[in-house]
Order: sequence, then structure tokens, then C-alpha cells
Amino acid sequence: MSNAFKNCKTVLVTGANRGLGLQIVESLVNGGFYPGKIIATARNPGEAKELQSLSKNHPNIHIIPLDVVSEESIKKAAVEVEQIVEEDGLNCLINNAGINVIADFETVTAEKMLENFHTNSVGPLMITKAMLPMLKRAAANGVGLGIHRASVINMTSLLGSVELNWGERAKDFKWYPYRTSKSALNMITRCMAVDLEADGILCMAIHPGWVRTDMGGQEAPLSTEESISSVLAVIGNLTEKDHGTFLHYTGEALPW
Amino acid sequence: MSNAFKNCKTVLVTGANRGLGLQIVESLVNGGFYPGKIIATARNPGEAKELQSLSKNHPNIHIIPLDVVSEESIKKAAVEVEQIVEEDGLNCLINNAGINVIADFETVTAEKMLENFHTNSVGPLMITKAMLPMLKRAAANGVGLGIHRASVINMTSLLGSVELNWGERAKDFKWYPYRTSKSALNMITRCMAVDLEADGILCMAIHPGWVRTDMGGQEAPLSTEESISSVLAVIGNLTEKDHGTFLHYTGEALPW
Repeated sequence: MSNAFKNCKTVLVTGANRGLGLQIVESLVNGGFYPGKIIATARNPGEAKELQSLSKNHPNIHIIPLDVVSEESIKKAAVEVEQIVEEDGLNCLINNAGINVIADFETVTAEKMLENFHTNSVGPLMITKAMLPMLKRAAANGVGLGIHRASVINMTSLLGSVELNWGERAKDFKWYPYRTSKSALNMITRCMAVDLEADGILCMAIHPGWVRTDMGGQEAPLSTEESISSVLAVIGNLTEKDHGTFLHYTGEALPW
Repeated sequence: MSNAFKNCKTVLVTGANRGLGLQIVESLVNGGFYPGKIIATARNPGEAKELQSLSKNHPNIHIIPLDVVSEESIKKAAVEVEQIVEEDGLNCLINNAGINVIADFETVTAEKMLENFHTNSVGPLMITKAMLPMLKRAAANGVGLGIHRASVINMTSLLGSVELNWGERAKDFKWYPYRTSKSALNMITRCMAVDLEADGILCMAIHPGWVRTDMGGQEAPLSTEESISSVLAVIGNLTEKDHGTFLHYTGEALPW
């Protein structure tokens, strides 16, 4: 993994206080991602004890507050990121923050749909817009597409695949707000891939697998280490052919 | 068309005050859909002059107010629909009401994303939930799937296809809120197809084509009559094989 990130100087990970986001930060520093800068965001950094203690041993971790549903918070974060990355810009934006507002057909409400959509779909779009100047700067003068220039990685889910939501696969996880938010995020990923290609910014969506986190539950087959080591290997090796795609953490293409 | 609807007693069309919704009502009555009942909803029925005048000549058109983003309005409408359809229940719910909050990557805001998602994605879901008792009653004791039992038809768009948002096709209509809302509606359609199949309720999404309406603009290739005569023929002939699909107005399957 560390080798795959060797040409990447700056990474931003949202929702880095726990779960997959925290593991991304851990795996990067444990893999020797230094002097590369890691900007780890959390809604309430003061409560992110594990992230705080990790950053004590790794001065290249920069923790900043970011509430992905707050326009003001996004604006403030962009100013802080600008000061951290300086002329390098931002090579890799990982939109990882997400929630699962569990509701089935019986229990779903408009409020639950809107809440999950705001965090999981609109958040990544608005954050990418705010980070665009830094992404463009990192992408300038490079060749090809990949994290050596600039990339927007949206953490999506297999459950956002409309195609796969059928038959045996559709019997579990009848989560209207979550599934819908991830389908919407997939469309946003594709729209951004179309629009940001000319700036040399790679955009793609990745499914991290079903992982033992607060969200995934303890019956999930993958540890966060297993998921993220594979996810980071995929991200680190992205090229033009992966632009605008929806990939499984193993690197295989998934249907929309 | 009229023949295709011969076993359908009750149809509900949202957003029937203009454009495709109004055309559905017109085409049904002009095609001899009688004594079948048409429930035509509009946010402000008082301003729906064409619909009002149409209903004067066709007593089987029942106009009721419905604001698809208002929980209270949906509840009230369900009570009115119950009184109109009585023991027949509802054979065909056409979730047609939709808006296009035009915004590209530069101009998109969280508010625009949420507004379009609420109307185009959440609205059809909440209306379907509210009409479920009437849909179930219409579906009871029937065989197979189709409008002879009960059906939920979501008016979606080709622009909601993530797969097709690429290459030449992606160069126009860079509408983040609209595209995202239609992708989300496609996922909702598929989720509902999974959940309502056991009740004998067919669910599918249809693209009506690019039509000369207030939304489509005057450069669109299809008239509302051309679009809707084809759409109604497709809807009238839906069977089990079309359950959970995304169809072009010509009847061909579209990729998600």
C-alpha cells in the first residue's frame, strides 16, 4: 500500500474519527506515508480520542473539524486545508463520511430519506466543490489520471447498485434511505467524472466491502484492516481506465 | 391504448395540471377510458384550467389537490382517493409529478439538490406508501402482474441512468439535482418492486422521451401526444417480466 501512495503528497479523509475513516488514517501512517500529509476530518474532533492519540505519534496527521451537511463548516475546512497543503494542492480526497438511517418501506419517512441523502450524497458533492482549487493545483502539469495528480474517491456501497438490488441479494438490507443515498452518490460520482476530467482530476466510487464497524455490525466478514488495505491498494493504482467507475474493494467493476 | 387499459378501472396521475400528466388524462379519456375513474392530482387545482375544462366533459375525471412534498397533503389525498375508488381500489398509480431544478457543478447547492430529491424521489415513495391500502385491494385475488391488478409507474428519465451518463451522451444536460433525483427514483422503484411483489403490485420506471413541455423545451423531438400514446401502450401491456424494470417509452429496457 505505502508504495502505491508513493507519488501522493496529500490525502484528505472525511469521517476519520472511527470505522473505515480512522482505519484509512492508521493504514496510511503504518504503511509509511511520510512526509505525506493526511488531513483527517471529523464532526467533533474533540471526541475523536483514537484519532487524537494517533496524531500525537504522527505529526503529518492534521485533524480539522468538518460537518459535511454544514455549508459554513465546509467553507471553514477549505480554508484550513488550503493552509495545510499549500502549493502541493490536494492529491486525494476520500469522501468517506456517511451514515445509515435505517428504515424499510414501512418505517421510512421523508425526513429519513432527506437526512441520509444530505450526508451521503450532497455532502461529498459540496466538499468536492469546496476543495476544487486545491485539487486543480495538484492536478496541474501532470500526465494521465491518478493519485499522483488529483482524485476524488467516493466511498459508496454495493447496496447502491440498482442492478444488484434484485433476487436473492435484495432479500436483506431493505434500507430505503441508505440504498437511495448511495445510488445518488454513484450518479454524482459519474457527473463529477465527466466534469472534472478536463482538469486532470480522477473521480470514482468504491465499495469497501461489508466491514466490522459500528455501521456494518459485528457479523460482517471483513475487519477494517482487511477492507482498507485492499481499498488503498485499489486507490493507489487507479489510472485513466478507472475514471468514472464503480469498483469493488477487490478492484472488480460493479454494475450501477 | 384504450384497449390496453380495458381491464383497469382506476388510475391516479400526479402532476396532472400540465405537460405529460395532463396529456395522460387527455389521452385516457380520448381513448375511451370510461367508466374507468381517473384521479388527476395537482398542487393547485384551482389554477389547472385545462384540466378543469377537460373534467367538465368527462365526469370520470376526479381532480384532487396534492402537494407531493407535504405529508399532510398526501394524507388528505389518500382519504379522498379512498372515497373515489371505493371497493375497486387503485389499479394504476402514475407518479408523474416532477421538477427540474437546473444546476451544473458550478451552480449546484445543497438546497437545490435537496429540493429536487424531495419532489422527484421522496414524493413518489411517500405517495405509494399512502396509496398502499388501495393498491393492495385492487391487487387482491388477481393473477399475474399488471394494471389489471395494481401497478406503480414512476416517470423517470434516461438522464437518471448512471451507465448512460458517459461519453457523447454526457456532454449535455449536466443537471446534478435532476439526474441525481432520477437515479434515486430508479433505486426506490427497484426497492418497491422487491417489497410489493408479494402483494401482487407491479412496480417499474419509465422514460417518457424528450418531450415538448415546459420542462423539455420547444426543441424536443416528441409532442406530448406522441410520448404518452407510446407510454400508455407500454403501461397497459406490462406483465410479470416488466416488474422492477427501467423502460424506454418505446418499451426497450434501459441500463441503470
